[in-house]
Amino acid sequence: MRKIYVIGIGSGDPDQLTLQAAKAIGRTDVFFLLDKGEAKESMIELRRRMLKAYGRPSRRIAEGRDPDRDRAPADYEATIADWRRRRSEVTEALIGEHLLDGETGAFLVWGDPSLYDSTIAILDEILARGQTTFEYEVIPGISSVSTLAARHRIGLNRVGRPFQVTTGRRLAEGWPDGADDVIVMLDAHQTFGTVDAENVEIFWGAYLGTEDELLVAGPLDEVADEIRRVRAEARERHGWIMDTYLLRRRA
Amino acid sequence: MRKIYVIGIGSGDPDQLTLQAAKAIGRTDVFFLLDKGEAKESMIELRRRMLKAYGRPSRRIAEGRDPDRDRAPADYEATIADWRRRRSEVTEALIGEHLLDGETGAFLVWGDPSLYDSTIAILDEILARGQTTFEYEVIPGISSVSTLAARHRIGLNRVGRPFQVTTGRRLAEGWPDGADDVIVMLDAHQTFGTVDAENVEIFWGAYLGTEDELLVAGPLDEVADEIRRVRAEARERHGWIMDTYLLRRRA
Ligand SMILES: C[S@@+](CC[C@H](N)C(=O)[O-])C[C@H]1O[C@@H](n2cnc3c(N)ncnc32)[C@H](O)[C@@H]1O
Ligand SMILES: C[S@@+](CC[C@H](N)C(=O)[O-])C[C@H]1O[C@@H](n2cnc3c(N)ncnc32)[C@H](O)[C@@H]1O
Repeated sequence: MRKIYVIGIGSGDPDQLTLQAAKAIGRTDVFFLLDKGEAKESMIELRRRMLKAYGRPSRRIAEGRDPDRDRAPADYEATIADWRRRRSEVTEALIGEHLLDGETGAFLVWGDPSLYDSTIAILDEILARGQTTFEYEVIPGISSVSTLAARHRIGLNRVGRPFQVTTGRRLAEGWPDGADDVIVMLDAHQTFGTVDAENVEIFWGAYLGTEDELLVAGPLDEVADEIRRVRAEARERHGWIMDTYLLRRRA
Repeated sequence: MRKIYVIGIGSGDPDQLTLQAAKAIGRTDVFFLLDKGEAKESMIELRRRMLKAYGRPSRRIAEGRDPDRDRAPADYEATIADWRRRRSEVTEALIGEHLLDGETGAFLVWGDPSLYDSTIAILDEILARGQTTFEYEVIPGISSVSTLAARHRIGLNRVGRPFQVTTGRRLAEGWPDGADDVIVMLDAHQTFGTVDAENVEIFWGAYLGTEDELLVAGPLDEVADEIRRVRAEARERHGWIMDTYLLRRRA
């Protein structure tokens, strides 16, 4: 039987790796890397460092080219579903070619594999097609959301209350029902600027866990401009940005 | 200056510790333990094991008695606020007595300190009173929620969609607005039994990350009874239970 690990590697700090993840890296024969042409230098560097520190000397790397996708699709969910299918085909071919009988493969996933990541769904899609068989196991990682909360020294929830995790795209439709604490991921458009800022605090972070980490917090109406400025400068300097934030509305 | 770490230690598996957490344990002079009389054996054992593996030989332990609180209060938030204040007083006294100038103290927190945990709020309350001063730093941990998702090999969100994290007490008021994916913590009453089960799947886990881990998943109407039975048996056997679940409603 072949085995595959889906390993959460944390949000950018090599020391956010768990012992369990380090051990799984050490048991892996083949690492699968699906990179977008524009893959971020610092992410590649982080992975390289982890493989060097915890991988077997005999480990192999199997690289695939991530299929392109429309970044501003009319139908978001259908576009993602189609992209996922093409991605699962590329992944299936990689596994078929590189993972030998009795071997162990691994995908290294940024943050925690359970949060807005498609690796698990892709493996399920491959298994559902029934042509390729393997066992797989998921190893949780420290997410960018946990890192955001830790760096700001806040809880995600207030006492006994719920919170919602959502995307920039959804927040653009308005403040979500059902929660006064909202964590926003995958926001390329500073959507915090569209919500009614009164009585709202923001806790914002970019490049969380990395040496380039940026943090801004305060009443939304007072710090929104500062976040826009800091974000634009950083994005210009690095060529890319990953940011996440919590919006906390007075009840 | 005195320093305090708030260290997330994961949900029960010693290998869920991050390298960062292990290093912080190794830099700590005094560990603060606030235990309820009924503290769970296996949690105490997990902490003991971590201190032994990563702590300095000269480390000290400062133990305090967690104040009691009403487990079925009429006014939940006020009761918690009062309990937190009494807890912060006990904690402040412990710090004052045991943490010497230039030393480093630590609180070991189950899971991730950002999820339904009061340690951060207690330290802020102490600092706000202005009598006791220290720096503090939060180290994120693998939460029971990430572990639940990993063990069931699922994402917490569906593609591009939001999810809510809430408590059993809140779920008892009805399915929350704004999300078809709901994670429930702090539920002593199997509140999943009160929701309309049609089109709902449940992913349930108890003692996640430990050797006693239990998992059940399936359509809520088909597996609710099994979860009740498994939960009651396990609770009887261990004398306590910690469980969490995801409810996923067909959109
Ligand atoms: C495709 S999702 C993957 C999330 C990842 N699985 C996790 O657990 O953090 C990417 C989004 O996560 C957030 N993100 C990931 N890493 C981040 C970091 N280091 N700093 C800030 N935000 C980050 C951003 O909102 C980004 O748009
Ligand atoms: C006070 S909260 C603390 C949560 C913790 N900070 C975390 O990140 O998991 C306690 C609740 O977390 C959940 N929980 C904590 N540890 C768990 C475990 N090992 N298995 C299942 N649920 C757990 C249960 O819902 C429990 O009622």
